[in-house]
Amino acid sequence: MREICRVAARVFYEKGYDGTSVQEVAAAVGLTKAGLYHHIESKDHLLFEIMNYGMDILQEEVLDKVKSIADPMEKLRQTILGHIDLIVRARDREITVILHENRSLKGALRKKINARKRDYIHYLESLIAAVQEQKGTAPLVPPRLAAFALLGMINWLYQWYQRDGGIKQHELAHQYADFFFRGLLGTV
Amino acid sequence: MREICRVAARVFYEKGYDGTSVQEVAAAVGLTKAGLYHHIESKDHLLFEIMNYGMDILQEEVLDKVKSIADPMEKLRQTILGHIDLIVRARDREITVILHENRSLKGALRKKINARKRDYIHYLESLIAAVQEQKGTAPLVPPRLAAFALLGMINWLYQWYQRDGGIKQHELAHQYADFFFRGLLGTV
Repeated sequence: MREICRVAARVFYEKGYDGTSVQEVAAAVGLTKAGLYHHIESKDHLLFEIMNYGMDILQEEVLDKVKSIADPMEKLRQTILGHIDLIVRARDREITVILHENRSLKGALRKKINARKRDYIHYLESLIAAVQEQKGTAPLVPPRLAAFALLGMINWLYQWYQRDGGIKQHELAHQYADFFFRGLLGTV
Repeated sequence: MREICRVAARVFYEKGYDGTSVQEVAAAVGLTKAGLYHHIESKDHLLFEIMNYGMDILQEEVLDKVKSIADPMEKLRQTILGHIDLIVRARDREITVILHENRSLKGALRKKINARKRDYIHYLESLIAAVQEQKGTAPLVPPRLAAFALLGMINWLYQWYQRDGGIKQHELAHQYADFFFRGLLGTV
C-alpha cells in the first residue's frame, strides 16, 4: 500500500489531483483499474491514504524518535531537525506537497487528516510552552503563534530548498533551529 | 481584467485548475466562452494573468508604499506588516493560494512569474543584509535563509489564520515581526 501511495502521489503531483484519472494511477502503479480498486475504495480514499501515510512518516520518523528526550528544548530542537529532514529528503517530496494542498479532500476523510495535523500542532504548542516555562521569564510570544511560525518556516522549504544548491541540509537545519529559538526566547 | 482574475481565481481554487473548464470560468464571470476568449488567449494565460495580478498587488499595495522609508529596519517592518495584510485579507485569498501552487503553469509563463517572485526575494535579502549591517555585529544568519524563513512564516498564514478567530490581525502582525527581528538579530 505504501508503494502505491508513493507512486500515486507522484502522479497527482505532476498532473494535479483533479486532472488525474484512476486509470492513470493504475497504469503508473502497474495494475489494472480493477486491480487498483482491490486496494482502494475510491480516488478520494487513495488521496486520504497518501495524506495519512505522510502523517505516519512524521509519527514514525520524527515523533517516535524524540519521545524519550526529557529536556523540552532538546526535544523541540530534535523535532525541528527531524521535520526538516522529512521535508527536504527527495523520496517523499510529493507526499509532503500533497499533504499541504488538502483542499481536494472533502468531508469525513478531510476531518480525519485535519485532526492528525491538529494533534501535531498541539504537540508543538505544549513543547514550546514548556521551553518558555523552563526559561523562567515572561513568554515573548504566544506558543500557538510560535508553533505556526515554525511550521511555516519548515513547510515552506519545499517551495525553494534544493539539496544540490549552495546550502547544505545540516547548515539549513541548525540555522533554522537557532533562528527559531532566538525568535522564541530572545538571545540564546 | 482584474475582476475576471478574481472570479476565475475563486473557481480554480474551488474546483482545482485541472478540473475546471474555460466554459465554467466563463459562466462564473458572466460571459460566453467566446466572450471570455476575447479577454484571454488560453486557460494557461488566464492562470498567468491571475498570478501576475497577485504580484501586482504586492507591488502596489506593499512595496510602492514603503519605497520612501529610509531606515532599513523600519522599511522591513512595514514590508512584513503589509505582506501579512495582503495574505490575511479575505478579498484576494484565492489569488494568494493560486500564486503559491504554481506547478500548473508551464514554460515561458511560469518563468515570468518566477522571475517576479525572485525579485521580491532579492529585495528582502538586501533589506535584511542592510538591517544586519546597521546592527554592526557579525550576522547571526545568512540573509537568504532569513528571507525564506520570513516568507514561510507569512505565506503559511493562509493555511491556518482565521480573521474571525481568537488572534487579531494587528496582534498577529506585530508578534510575527517581533519574532522575526529577534530571530534575525537576537534580542531587540
